[in-house]
Amino acid sequence: MKFTEEKFAKHMRPINGSAIREIFKLLARPGMISFAGGNPSNTALEPDVISDLAREVLAQYGTTLLQYGATDGFGPFRESAAEFLRGDGVKCDSTQILPVQGGSQAFDLLLKALIDPGDVVLCESPTFLGAIQAMREYNAKLVDMPTDDNGVIVEAAEELIKQHHPKLMYVIPTFQNPTGITLSLERRKALAELAAKYGVVIAEDDPYRDLRYSGQALPPIQSFDEEGWVVYMSSFSKYISPGMRLGAAAVTNPLLLRKMVIGKQSADVHSPLLNQAIVDAYLRKGLMPAHLERICGDYRLQLNAMLKGFERFPAGTRHTVPEGGLFVWAELPEGMDGMKAFDAAVEAGVAFVPGTHFYPDGGHLNTLRLNFSMCDIPTIEAGMERLSMVIGRIRN
Amino acid sequence: MKFTEEKFAKHMRPINGSAIREIFKLLARPGMISFAGGNPSNTALEPDVISDLAREVLAQYGTTLLQYGATDGFGPFRESAAEFLRGDGVKCDSTQILPVQGGSQAFDLLLKALIDPGDVVLCESPTFLGAIQAMREYNAKLVDMPTDDNGVIVEAAEELIKQHHPKLMYVIPTFQNPTGITLSLERRKALAELAAKYGVVIAEDDPYRDLRYSGQALPPIQSFDEEGWVVYMSSFSKYISPGMRLGAAAVTNPLLLRKMVIGKQSADVHSPLLNQAIVDAYLRKGLMPAHLERICGDYRLQLNAMLKGFERFPAGTRHTVPEGGLFVWAELPEGMDGMKAFDAAVEAGVAFVPGTHFYPDGGHLNTLRLNFSMCDIPTIEAGMERLSMVIGRIRN
Repeated sequence: MKFTEEKFAKHMRPINGSAIREIFKLLARPGMISFAGGNPSNTALEPDVISDLAREVLAQYGTTLLQYGATDGFGPFRESAAEFLRGDGVKCDSTQILPVQGGSQAFDLLLKALIDPGDVVLCESPTFLGAIQAMREYNAKLVDMPTDDNGVIVEAAEELIKQHHPKLMYVIPTFQNPTGITLSLERRKALAELAAKYGVVIAEDDPYRDLRYSGQALPPIQSFDEEGWVVYMSSFSKYISPGMRLGAAAVTNPLLLRKMVIGKQSADVHSPLLNQAIVDAYLRKGLMPAHLERICGDYRLQLNAMLKGFERFPAGTRHTVPEGGLFVWAELPEGMDGMKAFDAAVEAGVAFVPGTHFYPDGGHLNTLRLNFSMCDIPTIEAGMERLSMVIGRIRN
Repeated sequence: MKFTEEKFAKHMRPINGSAIREIFKLLARPGMISFAGGNPSNTALEPDVISDLAREVLAQYGTTLLQYGATDGFGPFRESAAEFLRGDGVKCDSTQILPVQGGSQAFDLLLKALIDPGDVVLCESPTFLGAIQAMREYNAKLVDMPTDDNGVIVEAAEELIKQHHPKLMYVIPTFQNPTGITLSLERRKALAELAAKYGVVIAEDDPYRDLRYSGQALPPIQSFDEEGWVVYMSSFSKYISPGMRLGAAAVTNPLLLRKMVIGKQSADVHSPLLNQAIVDAYLRKGLMPAHLERICGDYRLQLNAMLKGFERFPAGTRHTVPEGGLFVWAELPEGMDGMKAFDAAVEAGVAFVPGTHFYPDGGHLNTLRLNFSMCDIPTIEAGMERLSMVIGRIRN
């Protein structure tokens, strides 16, 4: 018998994960300037530091790091991660930390714990592509929340909660992917209140938080949560290394934490101990503050170069002015087609991600996501120059 | 509003993952001899080797190992894992290898790709606890296949296929967990034929294969598969280190491989590159054959000490005589209660896992799983002495 698509779970059949993958293939073309990714800069990564820490922790802990570990995590890492997150305003102790394979896994485990097929998840629109795919893989029904320049509009979210009785709300509050927008302080409070009022779990995905280049840090939504409705998902991918695949979820609700641990037991047993020990040592040695200061200094200049590049764009182009993170979001004048712009841009040697991919229901063809962390300043200037010319041209 | 169990997905509510966890808590008691785990021996782990390899690969690949990687894997590791698996008789090339967080994740991704709620999965009975939990988390219906001393009884499996139209069959063919039994050659061929005839995916979970202490290696079920129905799941947990969380699935069916990659994209993006590079270097340097020879030499003596210990058990006790792996399975005389034996054994300072936990539907109260890899020989002798006394006593 021949294997056919019919064998797949029904809701998995249409999920092919290819939209962005095709874009990334184009990036290999010689001379291509890429604003398409979401990686940290290579200059932010420290292989020598990681190498030294690997040696130290293997000498210190020996076979302990190579044996099976507990699903709920390596004790020292849970402690240092809790301390790090408390520094960001998260309310947690070490027993409330679940080490995960990046923020993605925290969300995956939440979906596994909560979602029956057809359950509603509220999300921002546009939102993180990986989260859209994850929600579809659990056969959730995605419902968009309207947003503005201060993030999710709380009154509209409340109406949607009344209408759809969602299990879960997915929010990226700080320097959102893809828009770069930050949820305002009052709305953070208000969302925490909504969660408790209506019994909706909030997945607060906050991996960019410490990449702030201007303005004042705001407390997490989780800091306003009194009853364990908000799960705070952090990650060391954007701060230390995405390739290490280590994040930390703070889950103050013991029932929910326990169910996520059970989901992780069968998914991958535990996060690798060597990786947990390396990041633990990084934090304990106090390397993070100076490191963040250095990389934020670089990223700030890169962001500014990109923002300046918009000056040559056609009148009517709007763009966000993020205070941090990795992305700027642009809206071309109404009626312009970002997909057509994408094709022309690739021809001209510059790539981005058409914004339509970040909308669960598509549309919004005049939007673009631009990343500035992976290019140096002359490259950003050259890329923005190319892009402005292409867009000016196709406009006429 | 207060968070209650009602918020969880319906099928997740009864999954509490606690049966074994409670046992492991008892192991901390002073003087306890544990036959309960399934870990490799600490003497099989090589922190100095891993430390050197970590330094080497970070020097060689630099920031590449710290950046995001491809979900389908780190190229060099895919090559060396394919070569390693081909040495075990698996038919695969490097493009058919998916790096995973231990064999558990390969099975999780298969379930995610294939299972609609209520779909049937055939499994051995008894079988691996983690797999039982994983199947339940995907809301699969578990159906036991009858087994004997040569593993799954093929004729019975065929009847069950006709009756239940399963999507998936889960088999641990070599030194099975928990029984230590190895599926015979003819049955390996026959299962591969059944899979193709009826269109059933076989998850061939084979993490113990190279821990063989006597007898001849048998080709994997996958080696008899012509049409991509068998997914071969290997792991470096039992060979190099469980704490590193790295396995490799060989998936010759491109549709299925693609869907597993999509599932992994949202679960954890990719397996950590440092871990893939370390195991790659381990394999490329040719360290595996001598390492396996050393650890198998030790495990062989430990197994023999355990088998000898059965001589003092009450008449009517049966036990398997595995040719490898980490476990021996015992059946006490009919009517004896393994749970009662467990309580008495813990009192006497020796622990095991009552076999009932490995049956999807419970029962089989007179069975025990004993692990020999984590104790040295005098400890095994002392533990078997204690156990034989306890069992002799509660028999009377």
